[in-house]
Amino acid sequence: MKAPAPLRLGIAGLGTVGVGVLRIVAAQAETLALRTGRAIEVSAVSARSRGKDRGIDLTPYAWEDDPVALARRNDVDLFVELMGGSDGPAKAATEAALAAGKPVVTANKAMLALHGQALAELAEANDAPLRFEAAVAGGIPCVKALTEGLAGNAITRVSGVMNGTCNYILTRMEASGLPYAEVFKEADALGYLEADPTLDVGGIDAGHKLALLAAIAFGTQVDFEGVQLQGIERVSIDDIHRARDMGYRIKLLGEARRTPAGVEQSMRPTLVPAESPLGQLEGGTNMVVFEGDAVGQIVMRGAGAGEGPTASAVMADVADIARGLRIPPFGQPAATLAPPRRANAATHCAHYIRLNLRDEPGAMAKVATALGLAGISIDRMRQYDHAGDDAPVLIVTHPCAPSDMAGALDQVTATGVVHGEPVALQIQTP
Amino acid sequence: MKAPAPLRLGIAGLGTVGVGVLRIVAAQAETLALRTGRAIEVSAVSARSRGKDRGIDLTPYAWEDDPVALARRNDVDLFVELMGGSDGPAKAATEAALAAGKPVVTANKAMLALHGQALAELAEANDAPLRFEAAVAGGIPCVKALTEGLAGNAITRVSGVMNGTCNYILTRMEASGLPYAEVFKEADALGYLEADPTLDVGGIDAGHKLALLAAIAFGTQVDFEGVQLQGIERVSIDDIHRARDMGYRIKLLGEARRTPAGVEQSMRPTLVPAESPLGQLEGGTNMVVFEGDAVGQIVMRGAGAGEGPTASAVMADVADIARGLRIPPFGQPAATLAPPRRANAATHCAHYIRLNLRDEPGAMAKVATALGLAGISIDRMRQYDHAGDDAPVLIVTHPCAPSDMAGALDQVTATGVVHGEPVALQIQTP
Repeated sequence: MKAPAPLRLGIAGLGTVGVGVLRIVAAQAETLALRTGRAIEVSAVSARSRGKDRGIDLTPYAWEDDPVALARRNDVDLFVELMGGSDGPAKAATEAALAAGKPVVTANKAMLALHGQALAELAEANDAPLRFEAAVAGGIPCVKALTEGLAGNAITRVSGVMNGTCNYILTRMEASGLPYAEVFKEADALGYLEADPTLDVGGIDAGHKLALLAAIAFGTQVDFEGVQLQGIERVSIDDIHRARDMGYRIKLLGEARRTPAGVEQSMRPTLVPAESPLGQLEGGTNMVVFEGDAVGQIVMRGAGAGEGPTASAVMADVADIARGLRIPPFGQPAATLAPPRRANAATHCAHYIRLNLRDEPGAMAKVATALGLAGISIDRMRQYDHAGDDAPVLIVTHPCAPSDMAGALDQVTATGVVHGEPVALQIQTP
Repeated sequence: MKAPAPLRLGIAGLGTVGVGVLRIVAAQAETLALRTGRAIEVSAVSARSRGKDRGIDLTPYAWEDDPVALARRNDVDLFVELMGGSDGPAKAATEAALAAGKPVVTANKAMLALHGQALAELAEANDAPLRFEAAVAGGIPCVKALTEGLAGNAITRVSGVMNGTCNYILTRMEASGLPYAEVFKEADALGYLEADPTLDVGGIDAGHKLALLAAIAFGTQVDFEGVQLQGIERVSIDDIHRARDMGYRIKLLGEARRTPAGVEQSMRPTLVPAESPLGQLEGGTNMVVFEGDAVGQIVMRGAGAGEGPTASAVMADVADIARGLRIPPFGQPAATLAPPRRANAATHCAHYIRLNLRDEPGAMAKVATALGLAGISIDRMRQYDHAGDDAPVLIVTHPCAPSDMAGALDQVTATGVVHGEPVALQIQTP
């Protein structure tokens, strides 16, 4: 029997992940050929700067300045898109490859979160796989686990911590006692932030990932606009310390649920029990949690970014394609994905409230009364020593509708006994 | 375009898992058809007793008394083997299906651990997939994660807690303070034990699972005989309490490593840090940890047994086959799997030692001297109050070769100042 032809990759984007892919293709050539039944080679590459020192010899590969031209090359069987950016060259080159019937592997969560439906339709129309394991949670093979490993389940909830930079900032704030602005500067100096840091700290990048998992989990069109987004910029070191006092840590937590009214998606700073697996997550580590009707809860943990982990995810997709795997990008034909139906803020949850109480008689009673009138009942409360004229007060409520909480805070503020804006954060429901 | 023909299952074995599979096929019929592009149906079943009440209507399915006949039926496209047992009908029926070129999905770890190489060769010779996600760690899609999701990695270590019954017994002993024999009886009354309980508490079942993962991870023929096995029967409530005092919990931990000398495989009671993810694992939950050169560490947690989780794993394999996935059972052609090369007990690790010291002058010095002469150095030591004539002593050593430890214990015993046999357990290396 004749050995099958090699699978020739064209890689667009030679940042850390692109270089990582080149390294794995070289280092694991023999193993990959054994595992996939085909030799995997890189024939051509493309990046913004040809001359940049990347610590790797690029002379074995043909060079293209234009990623679209790279995608169309006759010696490229599979297009690997690692440029990033939701539109522009990344999208143009991805479309060019798919239109030519070539498989695409991408780490581009923004592109898929915004154009996933159209790209999936294009991929399927051309019978070309489009895969994106590296777009979600770095090295954790969670897209595969959800799409294939849990295919027999009705998925009820997807949750997790999916942005390592935010998790680094939050754990570093706690460990150092430094305020957000200081730790943000540290993270920037360490090169942990995207060129536009709002993508990270605003929760947008993590929201993209959640929207992709939710689409697969619930068989719906990807609906990034439907993710209730709140970044970590307003998480104060005070809240981190106070939450800890109450047995919690603050994480940028994503949750997508299927409810009778539709799909709820949120990405926001949330209190989780300090001793829980999510609470113990340190630094750049990610955790993804799936809940299915048959399987119960499956938890996956691993590095959320970095050269090796992300390149590992890219290579998993490349290996699948080399092995002949053909699955629609979102796990079922794009035409059968249901249009988004949003049911936001429907699920009741407990809240953490921090406010500064003025030092005057009956102040606490007024706050408690305002909460009670708004239908919010108090589970635990802690008042700290007065600092100047104010006394910090922490309240953990019983579960209530998030919409009731917004109204309740207005009424608390209207009592006139609270100094400044009360802070309210959700507490993860079990 | 004509819709593809339905994929018709024949299910042999109608215990909890078989019934779970029947329930998922019925409940998720529409979703499964969307996800796989084919209708999935059950055409025929087989079990030991036709009349037994399983809480499910079997009249829609043809019945076969003989699983081999079931595997050969013309209306069975895919054979699901859920009978168990390493040989006998399970193996005969699996061979019959594969010889007929039919895909097989099985949860049978014993059969694969003992006959995996021959069955993989038979499967590949007949171009018939043979898949076994449900054989390892219940609902956790860990076979898939390793075989496909980490295909770009050189795997360096596989570890984990893979027998829920043992983990239940160990955590229940700690919570209740009851000795092993009592908790064993409880577990038996709850129906948690296999018909031959040695399979569970002797570590054999978990050893089967570890051997399967190791074969995939390292590209070697499955080598269950090469697993250093130690069960939990001799773990005492004293050791559980003392280990806890030192910050550890005792788990039946499996580890397989690639070393320059070959593959090391062990399944034995091991101390893990109490606050680590493994240390926090309660009851029937399983945890599997993969370490790869590119990806770093990937941790997966979920239910290790039970109707829903195990049926979920079976259905993942069924869905893969319906989608057309074709991968050799162990991730690379059986003919390319390297013969076993064992390198047992090569990796140094710290040990926990518990012994009862006679109440006589210089006793502790004699023990310390004996250990020192054997090349074992002490990291931490704790002596408890005398109970009668003896004083319990706990020692945590610095890392040493396990073979040195065996000799050292002999020398400690030879001092004559120790009452009874010293207990030594390994401490997990990070």
